[in-house]
Amino acid sequence: MADEKDKINDNVSWLREQSEAEPIASFLKMELAELSEGYAKVTMKITEDYQNFHGVTFGGIIMALADQAFAYASNSLVYPSVASHFSTYFIAGARMGDELTAECRVIKSGKRAGFSEVTITNQEGRLIARATGVTIPLNQQ
Amino acid sequence: MADEKDKINDNVSWLREQSEAEPIASFLKMELAELSEGYAKVTMKITEDYQNFHGVTFGGIIMALADQAFAYASNSLVYPSVASHFSTYFIAGARMGDELTAECRVIKSGKRAGFSEVTITNQEGRLIARATGVTIPLNQQ
Amino acid sequence: MADEKDKINDNVSWLREQSEAEPIASFLKMELAELSEGYAKVTMKITEDYQNFHGVTFGGIIMALADQAFAYASNSLVYPSVASHFSTYFIAGARMGDELTAECRVIKSGKRAGFSEVTITNQEGRLIARATGVTIPLNQQ
Amino acid sequence: MADEKDKINDNVSWLREQSEAEPIASFLKMELAELSEGYAKVTMKITEDYQNFHGVTFGGIIMALADQAFAYASNSLVYPSVASHFSTYFIAGARMGDELTAECRVIKSGKRAGFSEVTITNQEGRLIARATGVTIPLNQQ
Repeated sequence: MADEKDKINDNVSWLREQSEAEPIASFLKMELAELSEGYAKVTMKITEDYQNFHGVTFGGIIMALADQAFAYASNSLVYPSVASHFSTYFIAGARMGDELTAECRVIKSGKRAGFSEVTITNQEGRLIARATGVTIPLNQQ
Repeated sequence: MADEKDKINDNVSWLREQSEAEPIASFLKMELAELSEGYAKVTMKITEDYQNFHGVTFGGIIMALADQAFAYASNSLVYPSVASHFSTYFIAGARMGDELTAECRVIKSGKRAGFSEVTITNQEGRLIARATGVTIPLNQQ
Repeated sequence: MADEKDKINDNVSWLREQSEAEPIASFLKMELAELSEGYAKVTMKITEDYQNFHGVTFGGIIMALADQAFAYASNSLVYPSVASHFSTYFIAGARMGDELTAECRVIKSGKRAGFSEVTITNQEGRLIARATGVTIPLNQQ
Repeated sequence: MADEKDKINDNVSWLREQSEAEPIASFLKMELAELSEGYAKVTMKITEDYQNFHGVTFGGIIMALADQAFAYASNSLVYPSVASHFSTYFIAGARMGDELTAECRVIKSGKRAGFSEVTITNQEGRLIARATGVTIPLNQQ
Protein backbone atom coordinates (compact mmCIF):
# COMPACT_ATOMS: atom_id res chain seq x y z
CA MET A 1 0.00 0.00 0.00
CA ALA A 2 2.76 2.43 0.93
CA ASP A 3 4.72 1.04 -2.01
CA GLU A 4 1.73 1.63 -4.23
CA LYS A 5 1.51 5.28 -3.07
CA ASP A 6 5.23 5.76 -3.60
CA LYS A 7 5.04 4.38 -7.08
CA ILE A 8 2.15 6.72 -7.97
CA ASN A 9 4.03 9.71 -6.58
CA ASP A 10 7.06 8.68 -8.63
CA ASN A 11 4.91 8.38 -11.76
CA VAL A 12 3.40 11.83 -11.17
CA SER A 13 6.81 13.46 -10.67
CA TRP A 14 8.29 11.72 -13.67
CA LEU A 15 5.34 12.61 -15.93
CA ARG A 16 5.41 16.26 -14.85
CA GLU A 17 9.07 16.42 -15.81
CA GLN A 18 8.47 14.68 -19.14
CA SER A 19 5.62 17.03 -20.00
CA GLU A 20 7.99 19.97 -20.16
CA ALA A 21 9.97 18.51 -23.01
CA GLU A 22 7.31 16.42 -24.72
CA PRO A 23 7.41 17.02 -28.50
CA ILE A 24 3.67 16.63 -29.16
CA ALA A 25 2.74 18.84 -26.19
CA SER A 26 4.93 21.61 -27.46
CA PHE A 27 3.86 21.12 -31.10
CA LEU A 28 0.13 21.30 -30.27
CA LYS A 29 0.69 23.82 -27.45
CA MET A 30 -1.03 21.61 -24.89
CA GLU A 31 -0.23 22.43 -21.30
CA LEU A 32 -0.41 20.02 -18.37
CA ALA A 33 -2.20 22.26 -15.87
CA GLU A 34 -2.72 19.63 -13.15
CA LEU A 35 -1.68 16.07 -12.47
CA SER A 36 -2.48 13.95 -9.46
CA GLU A 37 -3.41 10.36 -8.66
CA GLY A 38 -5.68 9.25 -11.53
CA TYR A 39 -6.47 12.79 -12.62
CA ALA A 40 -5.08 15.16 -15.25
CA LYS A 41 -6.08 18.55 -16.59
CA VAL A 42 -4.66 19.75 -19.90
CA THR A 43 -5.35 23.08 -21.61
CA MET A 44 -5.05 24.27 -25.20
CA LYS A 45 -5.78 27.48 -27.04
CA ILE A 46 -7.59 27.08 -30.37
CA THR A 47 -5.62 28.80 -33.11
CA GLU A 48 -6.17 29.39 -36.80
CA ASP A 49 -3.97 26.36 -37.57
CA TYR A 50 -6.66 24.08 -36.14
CA GLN A 51 -9.45 25.16 -38.51
CA ASN A 52 -10.78 22.74 -41.13
CA PHE A 53 -12.55 23.02 -44.48
CA HIS A 54 -15.86 23.83 -42.74
CA GLY A 55 -14.13 26.85 -41.19
CA VAL A 56 -14.55 25.33 -37.71
CA THR A 57 -12.16 23.62 -35.31
CA PHE A 58 -11.02 20.21 -36.54
CA GLY A 59 -12.42 17.31 -34.48
CA GLY A 60 -9.03 15.61 -34.49
CA ILE A 61 -7.62 18.48 -32.43
CA ILE A 62 -10.36 18.06 -29.83
CA MET A 63 -9.54 14.34 -29.69
CA ALA A 64 -5.82 15.06 -29.38
CA LEU A 65 -6.46 17.30 -26.38
CA ALA A 66 -8.70 14.67 -24.77
CA ASP A 67 -6.12 11.96 -25.47
CA GLN A 68 -3.40 13.97 -23.80
CA ALA A 69 -5.36 14.26 -20.53
CA PHE A 70 -6.18 10.55 -20.84
CA ALA A 71 -2.53 9.56 -21.30
CA TYR A 72 -1.35 11.53 -18.27
CA ALA A 73 -4.17 10.45 -15.94
CA SER A 74 -3.78 6.76 -16.85
CA ASN A 75 -0.01 6.75 -16.57
CA SER A 76 -0.11 8.46 -13.18
CA LEU A 77 -1.55 5.23 -11.79
CA VAL A 78 0.13 2.59 -13.93
CA TYR A 79 3.22 3.42 -15.91
CA PRO A 80 3.66 2.50 -18.73
CA SER A 81 0.07 2.15 -19.97
CA VAL A 82 -0.99 2.49 -23.60
CA ALA A 83 -4.37 3.24 -25.15
CA SER A 84 -6.27 0.35 -26.66
CA HIS A 85 -9.43 2.26 -27.47
CA PHE A 86 -10.60 5.87 -27.43
CA SER A 87 -14.07 7.19 -28.15
CA THR A 88 -15.20 10.81 -28.40
CA TYR A 89 -18.65 12.44 -28.47
CA PHE A 90 -18.72 15.92 -29.97
CA ILE A 91 -21.28 18.05 -28.14
CA ALA A 92 -20.59 21.61 -29.30
CA GLY A 93 -18.12 23.23 -31.68
CA ALA A 94 -14.96 25.02 -30.54
CA ARG A 95 -14.16 28.42 -32.04
CA MET A 96 -10.93 30.17 -32.83
CA GLY A 97 -9.55 31.81 -29.72
CA ASP A 98 -11.32 29.38 -27.38
CA GLU A 99 -9.33 28.16 -24.40
CA LEU A 100 -10.21 24.50 -23.97
CA THR A 101 -9.70 22.40 -20.87
CA ALA A 102 -9.68 18.61 -20.86
CA GLU A 103 -10.09 16.88 -17.52
CA CYS A 104 -9.58 13.14 -17.27
CA ARG A 105 -10.46 10.90 -14.36
CA VAL A 106 -9.51 7.23 -14.21
CA ILE A 107 -12.67 5.30 -13.29
CA LYS A 108 -11.03 1.92 -13.01
CA SER A 109 -7.37 1.01 -12.92
CA GLY A 110 -7.00 -2.75 -13.03
CA LYS A 111 -4.11 -5.14 -13.42
CA ARG A 112 -5.08 -5.90 -17.01
CA ALA A 113 -7.06 -2.86 -18.17
CA GLY A 114 -7.98 0.67 -17.14
CA PHE A 115 -10.98 2.80 -18.00
CA SER A 116 -11.11 6.60 -17.97
CA GLU A 117 -13.48 9.44 -18.78
CA VAL A 118 -12.65 12.87 -20.18
CA THR A 119 -14.65 16.11 -20.21
CA ILE A 120 -13.71 19.00 -22.49
CA THR A 121 -15.08 22.44 -21.78
CA ASN A 122 -14.37 25.92 -23.12
CA GLN A 123 -13.48 29.12 -21.21
CA GLU A 124 -17.17 29.68 -20.37
CA GLY A 125 -17.55 26.19 -18.93
CA ARG A 126 -19.58 25.01 -21.89
CA LEU A 127 -19.37 21.29 -22.62
CA ILE A 128 -17.52 20.74 -25.92
CA ALA A 129 -16.92 16.98 -25.87
CA ARG A 130 -16.94 13.86 -23.71
CA ALA A 131 -14.54 11.00 -24.26
CA THR A 132 -13.82 7.57 -22.83
CA GLY A 133 -10.90 5.23 -23.24
CA VAL A 134 -9.40 1.88 -22.35
CA THR A 135 -5.74 1.53 -21.38
CA ILE A 136 -3.59 -1.57 -21.18
CA PRO A 137 -0.69 -1.73 -18.69
CA LEU A 138 2.46 -2.82 -20.53
CA ASN A 139 4.28 -4.43 -17.63
CA GLN A 140 1.82 -6.61 -15.79
CA GLN A 141 2.76 -8.28 -12.54
CA MET B 1 -30.81 10.45 -59.07
CA ALA B 2 -28.91 12.48 -61.67
CA ASP B 3 -29.25 15.42 -59.28
CA GLU B 4 -27.83 13.28 -56.51
CA LYS B 5 -24.81 12.35 -58.67
CA ASP B 6 -24.28 15.98 -59.65
CA LYS B 7 -24.38 17.09 -56.05
CA ILE B 8 -21.80 14.44 -55.06
CA ASN B 9 -19.52 15.47 -57.93
CA ASP B 10 -19.84 19.08 -56.82
CA ASN B 11 -19.00 18.12 -53.24
CA VAL B 12 -15.93 16.18 -54.37
CA SER B 13 -14.65 19.06 -56.51
CA TRP B 14 -15.29 21.62 -53.82
CA LEU B 15 -13.62 19.50 -51.11
CA ARG B 16 -10.56 18.87 -53.29
CA GLU B 17 -10.18 22.60 -53.74
CA GLN B 18 -10.64 23.31 -50.05
CA SER B 19 -8.09 20.69 -49.08
CA GLU B 20 -5.32 22.69 -50.74
CA ALA B 21 -5.77 25.62 -48.40
CA GLU B 22 -7.09 23.88 -45.31
CA PRO B 23 -5.23 25.16 -42.22
CA ILE B 24 -5.28 21.90 -40.22
CA ALA B 25 -4.19 19.84 -43.25
CA SER B 26 -1.21 22.05 -43.79
CA PHE B 27 -0.40 22.30 -40.06
CA LEU B 28 -0.43 18.50 -39.58
CA LYS B 29 0.98 17.86 -43.08
CA MET B 30 -1.94 15.61 -44.01
CA GLU B 31 -2.43 15.12 -47.73
CA LEU B 32 -5.69 14.20 -49.45
CA ALA B 33 -4.40 11.48 -51.78
CA GLU B 34 -7.77 10.34 -53.13
CA LEU B 35 -11.38 11.43 -52.90
CA SER B 36 -14.38 9.90 -54.57
CA GLU B 37 -18.00 9.10 -53.78
CA GLY B 38 -18.01 7.99 -50.12
CA TYR B 39 -14.28 7.29 -50.06
CA ALA B 40 -11.20 9.25 -49.00
CA LYS B 41 -7.52 8.42 -48.60
CA VAL B 42 -5.30 10.74 -46.56
CA THR B 43 -1.57 10.34 -45.92
CA MET B 44 0.76 11.68 -43.24
CA LYS B 45 4.43 11.29 -42.43
CA ILE B 46 5.21 10.72 -38.76
CA THR B 47 7.72 13.31 -37.58
CA GLU B 48 9.56 13.96 -34.33
CA ASP B 49 6.91 16.56 -33.42
CA TYR B 50 4.36 13.77 -33.01
CA GLN B 51 6.24 11.85 -30.32
CA ASN B 52 4.89 11.66 -26.77
CA PHE B 53 6.35 11.08 -23.30
CA HIS B 54 6.60 7.33 -23.97
CA GLY B 55 8.87 8.12 -26.91
CA VAL B 56 6.26 6.74 -29.34
CA THR B 57 3.77 8.38 -31.70
CA PHE B 58 0.95 10.18 -29.88
CA GLY B 59 -2.44 8.47 -30.28
CA GLY B 60 -4.11 11.81 -30.86
CA ILE B 61 -2.15 12.19 -34.09
CA ILE B 62 -3.36 8.81 -35.33
CA MET B 63 -6.93 9.88 -34.49
CA ALA B 64 -6.46 13.20 -36.27
CA LEU B 65 -5.35 11.41 -39.44
CA ALA B 66 -8.32 9.02 -39.24
CA ASP B 67 -10.69 11.92 -38.59
CA GLN B 68 -9.45 13.75 -41.66
CA ALA B 69 -10.23 10.80 -43.97
CA PHE B 70 -13.59 10.48 -42.18
CA ALA B 71 -14.47 14.15 -42.70
CA TYR B 72 -13.67 14.08 -46.42
CA ALA B 73 -15.41 10.77 -47.16
CA SER B 74 -18.57 11.79 -45.27
CA ASN B 75 -18.77 15.22 -46.80
CA SER B 76 -18.30 13.87 -50.30
CA LEU B 77 -21.79 12.36 -49.97
CA VAL B 78 -23.58 14.89 -47.78
CA TYR B 79 -22.20 18.37 -47.37
CA PRO B 80 -22.09 19.78 -44.75
CA SER B 81 -21.94 16.86 -42.31
CA VAL B 82 -20.34 17.02 -38.87
CA ALA B 83 -19.02 14.29 -36.60
CA SER B 84 -21.19 13.28 -33.68
CA HIS B 85 -19.03 10.39 -32.50
CA PHE B 86 -15.63 8.95 -33.34
CA SER B 87 -14.05 5.79 -31.96
CA THR B 88 -10.54 4.46 -32.54
CA TYR B 89 -8.89 1.08 -31.84
CA PHE B 90 -5.13 1.18 -31.62
CA ILE B 91 -3.68 -2.02 -33.08
CA ALA B 92 0.05 -1.34 -33.47
CA GLY B 93 2.31 1.61 -32.75
CA ALA B 94 3.52 4.05 -35.41
CA ARG B 95 7.21 4.99 -35.50
CA MET B 96 9.05 8.11 -36.46
CA GLY B 97 9.49 8.22 -40.23
CA ASP B 98 6.46 6.03 -40.88
CA GLU B 99 4.25 7.04 -43.78
CA LEU B 100 0.68 6.41 -42.64
CA THR B 101 -2.35 6.07 -44.88
CA ALA B 102 -5.93 6.44 -43.63
CA GLU B 103 -8.68 5.12 -45.86
CA CYS B 104 -12.29 5.85 -45.01
CA ARG B 105 -15.37 4.31 -46.55
CA VAL B 106 -18.90 5.48 -45.79
CA ILE B 107 -20.95 2.40 -44.89
CA LYS B 108 -24.26 4.16 -44.58
CA SER B 109 -25.23 7.66 -45.60
CA GLY B 110 -28.74 8.38 -44.40
CA LYS B 111 -30.92 11.46 -44.26
CA ARG B 112 -30.39 11.80 -40.50
CA ALA B 113 -27.08 10.04 -39.82
CA GLY B 114 -24.10 8.52 -41.57
CA PHE B 115 -21.72 5.76 -40.50
CA SER B 116 -18.15 5.27 -41.73
CA GLU B 117 -15.16 3.05 -41.14
CA VAL B 118 -11.48 3.96 -41.33
CA THR B 119 -8.38 1.78 -41.68
CA ILE B 120 -4.92 3.14 -40.94
CA THR B 121 -1.87 1.30 -42.25
CA ASN B 122 1.84 2.08 -42.44
CA GLN B 123 4.16 2.00 -45.47
CA GLU B 124 4.50 -1.81 -45.13
CA GLY B 125 0.73 -2.31 -45.14
CA ARG B 126 0.68 -3.13 -41.45
CA LEU B 127 -2.58 -2.34 -39.67
CA ILE B 128 -2.01 0.51 -37.19
CA ALA B 129 -5.58 1.42 -36.22
CA ARG B 130 -9.23 0.99 -37.08
CA ALA B 131 -11.80 3.69 -36.48
CA THR B 132 -15.53 4.22 -36.85
CA GLY B 133 -17.66 7.32 -36.72
CA VAL B 134 -21.14 8.77 -36.91
CA THR B 135 -21.89 11.92 -38.89
CA ILE B 136 -24.92 14.18 -38.78
CA PRO B 137 -25.99 16.10 -41.89
CA LEU B 138 -26.46 19.76 -40.99
CA ASN B 139 -29.01 20.70 -43.65
CA GLN B 140 -31.64 18.01 -43.68
CA GLN B 141 -34.38 18.01 -46.26
CA MET C 1 -41.14 26.71 -23.47
CA ALA C 2 -44.43 25.76 -21.82
CA ASP C 3 -45.17 23.69 -24.91
CA GLU C 4 -41.80 22.03 -24.59
CA LYS C 5 -42.54 21.14 -20.95
CA ASP C 6 -45.99 19.82 -21.88
CA LYS C 7 -44.54 17.65 -24.61
CA ILE C 8 -41.98 16.18 -22.21
CA ASN C 9 -44.66 15.46 -19.62
CA ASP C 10 -46.74 13.78 -22.30
CA ASN C 11 -43.75 11.68 -23.38
CA VAL C 12 -43.07 10.62 -19.79
CA SER C 13 -46.70 9.61 -19.19
CA TRP C 14 -46.94 7.76 -22.47
CA LEU C 15 -43.65 5.91 -21.92
CA ARG C 16 -44.65 4.89 -18.39
CA GLU C 17 -47.84 3.39 -19.77
CA GLN C 18 -46.01 1.62 -22.59
CA SER C 19 -43.47 0.15 -20.21
CA GLU C 20 -46.15 -1.92 -18.50
CA ALA C 21 -46.92 -3.87 -21.64
CA GLU C 22 -43.56 -3.76 -23.38
CA PRO C 23 -42.66 -7.24 -24.66
CA ILE C 24 -38.88 -6.98 -24.19
CA ALA C 25 -39.25 -5.50 -20.70
CA SER C 26 -41.41 -8.37 -19.61
CA PHE C 27 -39.25 -10.98 -21.41
CA LEU C 28 -36.01 -9.76 -19.78
CA LYS C 29 -37.80 -8.80 -16.53
CA MET C 30 -36.54 -5.22 -16.68
CA GLU C 31 -38.49 -2.76 -14.57
CA LEU C 32 -38.77 0.96 -15.17
CA ALA C 33 -38.21 2.19 -11.62
CA GLU C 34 -38.06 5.92 -12.40
CA LEU C 35 -38.64 8.17 -15.36
CA SER C 36 -38.40 11.93 -15.51
CA GLU C 37 -37.16 14.61 -17.88
CA GLY C 38 -34.00 13.18 -19.47
CA TYR C 39 -33.53 10.55 -16.78
CA ALA C 40 -34.48 6.88 -16.43
CA LYS C 41 -33.71 4.17 -13.91
CA VAL C 42 -34.26 0.53 -14.86
CA THR C 43 -33.67 -2.52 -12.67
CA MET C 44 -33.10 -6.20 -13.41
CA LYS C 45 -32.41 -9.29 -11.36
CA ILE C 46 -29.66 -11.54 -12.72
CA THR C 47 -30.99 -15.07 -13.15
CA GLU C 48 -29.52 -18.39 -14.20
CA ASP C 49 -30.84 -17.80 -17.72
CA TYR C 50 -28.36 -14.98 -18.17
CA GLN C 51 -25.22 -17.05 -17.56
CA ASN C 52 -22.79 -17.74 -20.40
CA PHE C 53 -20.18 -20.41 -21.22
CA HIS C 54 -17.71 -18.83 -18.78
CA GLY C 55 -20.28 -19.38 -16.02
CA VAL C 56 -20.67 -15.61 -15.55
CA THR C 57 -23.33 -13.13 -16.57
CA PHE C 58 -23.48 -12.57 -20.33
CA GLY C 59 -22.29 -9.09 -21.39
CA GLY C 60 -25.18 -8.79 -23.81
CA ILE C 61 -27.60 -8.79 -20.86
CA ILE C 62 -25.73 -5.93 -19.20
CA MET C 63 -25.90 -4.01 -22.49
CA ALA C 64 -29.61 -4.75 -22.84
CA LEU C 65 -30.27 -3.31 -19.37
CA ALA C 66 -28.19 -0.21 -20.17
CA ASP C 67 -29.95 0.18 -23.52
CA GLN C 68 -33.35 0.09 -21.86
CA ALA C 69 -32.52 2.98 -19.53
CA PHE C 70 -31.03 4.80 -22.54
CA ALA C 71 -34.16 4.32 -24.64
CA TYR C 72 -36.49 5.63 -21.93
CA ALA C 73 -34.34 8.61 -20.94
CA SER C 74 -33.81 9.70 -24.55
CA ASN C 75 -37.44 9.31 -25.54
CA SER C 76 -38.63 11.26 -22.51
CA LEU C 77 -37.15 14.36 -24.13
CA VAL C 78 -37.65 13.67 -27.83
CA TYR C 79 -40.11 11.07 -28.97
CA PRO C 80 -39.54 9.11 -31.15
CA SER C 81 -35.74 8.88 -30.98
CA VAL C 82 -33.75 5.84 -32.07
CA ALA C 83 -30.23 4.71 -31.16
CA SER C 84 -27.53 5.28 -33.73
CA HIS C 85 -24.62 4.12 -31.59
CA PHE C 86 -24.16 2.48 -28.21
CA SER C 87 -20.90 1.77 -26.42
CA THR C 88 -20.36 -0.15 -23.18
CA TYR C 89 -17.36 -0.48 -20.84
CA PHE C 90 -17.43 -3.53 -18.61
CA ILE C 91 -15.93 -2.69 -15.23
CA ALA C 92 -16.83 -5.63 -12.99
CA GLY C 93 -18.72 -8.88 -13.46
CA ALA C 94 -22.32 -9.40 -12.38
CA ARG C 95 -23.22 -12.55 -10.44
CA MET C 96 -26.32 -14.68 -10.31
CA GLY C 97 -28.81 -13.14 -7.89
CA ASP C 98 -27.43 -9.63 -8.30
CA GLU C 99 -29.97 -6.84 -8.55
CA LEU C 100 -28.64 -4.43 -11.15
CA THR C 101 -29.69 -0.82 -11.62
CA ALA C 102 -29.08 1.16 -14.78
CA GLU C 103 -29.38 4.92 -14.57
CA CYS C 104 -29.29 7.00 -17.72
CA ARG C 105 -28.97 10.76 -18.00
CA VAL C 106 -29.27 12.64 -21.26
CA ILE C 107 -26.25 14.94 -21.53
CA LYS C 108 -27.30 16.69 -24.72
CA SER C 109 -30.61 16.61 -26.50
CA GLY C 110 -30.30 18.44 -29.78
CA LYS C 111 -32.51 18.87 -32.82
CA ARG C 112 -30.41 16.42 -34.84
CA ALA C 113 -28.72 14.19 -32.25
CA GLY C 114 -28.75 13.36 -28.56
CA PHE C 115 -26.02 12.04 -26.29
CA SER C 116 -26.55 10.09 -23.06
CA GLU C 117 -24.55 8.32 -20.38
CA VAL C 118 -25.51 5.23 -18.40
CA THR C 119 -24.16 3.85 -15.11
CA ILE C 120 -24.87 0.28 -14.04
CA THR C 121 -24.37 -0.69 -10.41
CA ASN C 122 -25.21 -3.75 -8.35
CA GLN C 123 -27.15 -3.97 -5.06
CA GLU C 124 -24.01 -2.94 -3.12
CA GLY C 125 -23.50 0.15 -5.26
CA ARG C 126 -20.53 -1.37 -7.02
CA LEU C 127 -19.89 -0.06 -10.53
CA ILE C 128 -20.55 -2.85 -13.05
CA ALA C 129 -20.51 -0.95 -16.34
CA ARG C 130 -20.60 2.48 -17.94
CA ALA C 131 -22.22 3.11 -21.29
CA THR C 132 -22.74 5.98 -23.71
CA GLY C 133 -24.97 6.38 -26.72
CA VAL C 134 -26.09 8.61 -29.54
CA THR C 135 -29.76 8.99 -30.45
CA ILE C 136 -31.33 10.42 -33.59
CA PRO C 137 -34.75 12.10 -33.41
CA LEU C 138 -36.99 10.60 -36.10
CA ASN C 139 -39.29 13.58 -36.64
CA GLN C 140 -37.15 16.65 -36.89
CA GLN C 141 -38.68 20.09 -37.07
CA MET D 1 3.39 -23.03 -33.11
CA ALA D 2 2.00 -26.58 -33.17
CA ASP D 3 1.14 -26.05 -29.52
CA GLU D 4 -0.63 -22.84 -30.44
CA LYS D 5 -2.67 -24.66 -33.11
CA ASP D 6 -3.51 -27.46 -30.68
CA LYS D 7 -4.66 -25.00 -28.08
CA ILE D 8 -6.93 -23.23 -30.58
CA ASN D 9 -8.41 -26.55 -31.72
CA ASP D 10 -9.03 -27.45 -28.09
CA ASN D 11 -10.72 -24.09 -27.48
CA VAL D 12 -12.95 -24.54 -30.53
CA SER D 13 -14.01 -28.05 -29.49
CA TRP D 14 -14.62 -27.02 -25.91
CA LEU D 15 -16.65 -23.93 -26.91
CA ARG D 16 -18.77 -25.95 -29.36
CA GLU D 17 -19.63 -28.33 -26.55
CA GLN D 18 -20.39 -25.52 -24.12
CA SER D 19 -22.65 -23.78 -26.60
CA GLU D 20 -25.10 -26.67 -26.51
CA ALA D 21 -25.87 -26.17 -22.84
CA GLU D 22 -25.24 -22.46 -22.47
CA PRO D 23 -28.09 -20.86 -20.51
CA ILE D 24 -28.10 -17.48 -22.31
CA ALA D 25 -27.89 -19.12 -25.75
CA SER D 26 -30.90 -21.22 -25.02
CA PHE D 27 -32.80 -18.37 -23.32
CA LEU D 28 -32.28 -15.98 -26.27
CA LYS D 29 -32.45 -18.81 -28.83
CA MET D 30 -29.06 -17.93 -30.30
CA GLU D 31 -27.43 -20.69 -32.30
CA LEU D 32 -23.72 -21.11 -32.90
CA ALA D 33 -23.78 -21.85 -36.64
CA GLU D 34 -20.03 -21.82 -37.22
CA LEU D 35 -16.88 -21.61 -35.13
CA SER D 36 -13.30 -21.70 -36.32
CA GLU D 37 -9.99 -20.01 -35.56
CA GLY D 38 -10.88 -16.38 -34.78
CA TYR D 39 -14.28 -16.57 -36.43
CA ALA D 40 -17.83 -17.24 -35.22
CA LYS D 41 -21.26 -17.07 -36.80
CA VAL D 42 -24.34 -16.94 -34.58
CA THR D 43 -27.97 -16.82 -35.70
CA MET D 44 -31.18 -15.69 -34.02
CA LYS D 45 -34.80 -15.41 -35.04
CA ILE D 46 -36.53 -12.18 -34.05
CA THR D 47 -39.67 -12.95 -32.07
CA GLU D 48 -42.45 -10.89 -30.55
CA ASP D 49 -40.68 -11.04 -27.18
CA TYR D 50 -37.91 -8.81 -28.57
CA GLN D 51 -40.15 -5.87 -29.50
CA ASN D 52 -39.89 -2.59 -27.61
CA PHE D 53 -42.19 0.39 -26.91
CA HIS D 54 -41.59 1.75 -30.42
CA GLY D 55 -42.97 -1.52 -31.79
CA VAL D 56 -39.58 -2.40 -33.30
CA THR D 57 -36.84 -4.81 -32.30
CA PHE D 58 -35.03 -3.76 -29.12
CA GLY D 59 -31.44 -2.63 -29.75
CA GLY D 60 -30.24 -4.59 -26.73
CA ILE D 61 -31.20 -7.81 -28.49
CA ILE D 62 -29.14 -6.87 -31.54
CA MET D 63 -26.21 -6.14 -29.21
CA ALA D 64 -26.69 -9.45 -27.40
CA LEU D 65 -26.51 -11.34 -30.69
CA ALA D 66 -23.37 -9.42 -31.72
CA ASP D 67 -21.82 -10.01 -28.31
CA GLN D 68 -22.40 -13.74 -28.57
CA ALA D 69 -20.48 -14.00 -31.86
CA PHE D 70 -17.78 -11.77 -30.33
CA ALA D 71 -17.43 -13.98 -27.25
CA TYR D 72 -17.07 -17.18 -29.26
CA ALA D 73 -14.67 -15.78 -31.86
CA SER D 74 -12.41 -14.20 -29.21
CA ASN D 75 -12.36 -17.24 -26.96
CA SER D 76 -11.53 -19.54 -29.87
CA LEU D 77 -8.10 -17.90 -29.95
CA VAL D 78 -7.48 -17.09 -26.29
CA TYR D 79 -9.49 -18.79 -23.60
CA PRO D 80 -10.59 -17.34 -21.21
CA SER D 81 -10.97 -13.81 -22.60
CA VAL D 82 -13.50 -11.29 -21.34
CA ALA D 83 -14.95 -8.19 -22.96
CA SER D 84 -13.60 -4.85 -21.81
CA HIS D 85 -15.49 -2.73 -24.32
CA PHE D 86 -18.21 -3.23 -26.91
CA SER D 87 -19.55 -0.69 -29.37
CA THR D 88 -22.48 -1.07 -31.78
CA TYR D 89 -23.66 1.01 -34.74
CA PHE D 90 -27.30 0.50 -35.68
CA ILE D 91 -27.69 0.73 -39.45
CA ALA D 92 -31.20 -0.58 -40.14
CA GLY D 93 -34.03 -1.91 -38.02
CA ALA D 94 -34.81 -5.61 -37.58
CA ARG D 95 -38.41 -6.78 -37.92
CA MET D 96 -40.37 -9.53 -36.28
CA GLY D 97 -39.70 -12.81 -38.07
CA ASP D 98 -36.29 -11.70 -39.33
CA GLU D 99 -33.52 -14.27 -39.17
CA LEU D 100 -30.40 -12.41 -38.13
CA THR D 101 -26.83 -13.58 -38.56
CA ALA D 102 -23.90 -12.15 -36.62
CA GLU D 103 -20.43 -12.87 -37.95
CA CYS D 104 -17.40 -11.95 -35.88
CA ARG D 105 -13.78 -11.89 -36.99
CA VAL D 106 -10.90 -11.29 -34.63
CA ILE D 107 -8.72 -8.60 -36.18
CA LYS D 108 -5.98 -8.69 -33.58
CA SER D 109 -5.36 -11.21 -30.85
CA GLY D 110 -2.52 -10.02 -28.66
CA LYS D 111 -1.03 -11.12 -25.37
CA ARG D 112 -2.69 -8.24 -23.52
CA ALA D 113 -5.71 -7.31 -25.64
CA GLY D 114 -7.75 -8.48 -28.61
CA PHE D 115 -9.83 -6.53 -31.10
CA SER D 116 -12.75 -7.90 -33.13
CA GLU D 117 -15.38 -6.75 -35.59
CA VAL D 118 -18.93 -8.00 -36.00
CA THR D 119 -21.37 -7.67 -38.89
CA ILE D 120 -25.08 -8.36 -38.42
CA THR D 121 -27.25 -8.98 -41.46
CA ASN D 122 -30.81 -10.18 -41.99
CA GLN D 123 -32.10 -13.06 -44.17
CA GLU D 124 -31.87 -10.83 -47.26
CA GLY D 125 -28.24 -9.95 -46.59
CA ARG D 126 -29.16 -6.42 -45.55
CA LEU D 127 -26.74 -4.79 -43.09
CA ILE D 128 -28.48 -4.33 -39.73
CA ALA D 129 -25.56 -3.40 -37.47
CA ARG D 130 -21.79 -3.27 -37.17
CA ALA D 131 -20.02 -3.75 -33.87
CA THR D 132 -16.48 -3.71 -32.51
CA GLY D 133 -15.03 -4.87 -29.23
CA VAL D 134 -11.95 -5.21 -27.10
CA THR D 135 -11.17 -8.38 -25.15
CA ILE D 136 -8.73 -8.96 -22.32
CA PRO D 137 -7.13 -12.39 -21.85
CA LEU D 138 -7.59 -13.46 -18.23
CA ASN D 139 -4.57 -15.73 -17.93
CA GLN D 140 -1.64 -13.93 -19.43
CA GLN D 141 1.71 -15.63 -19.83
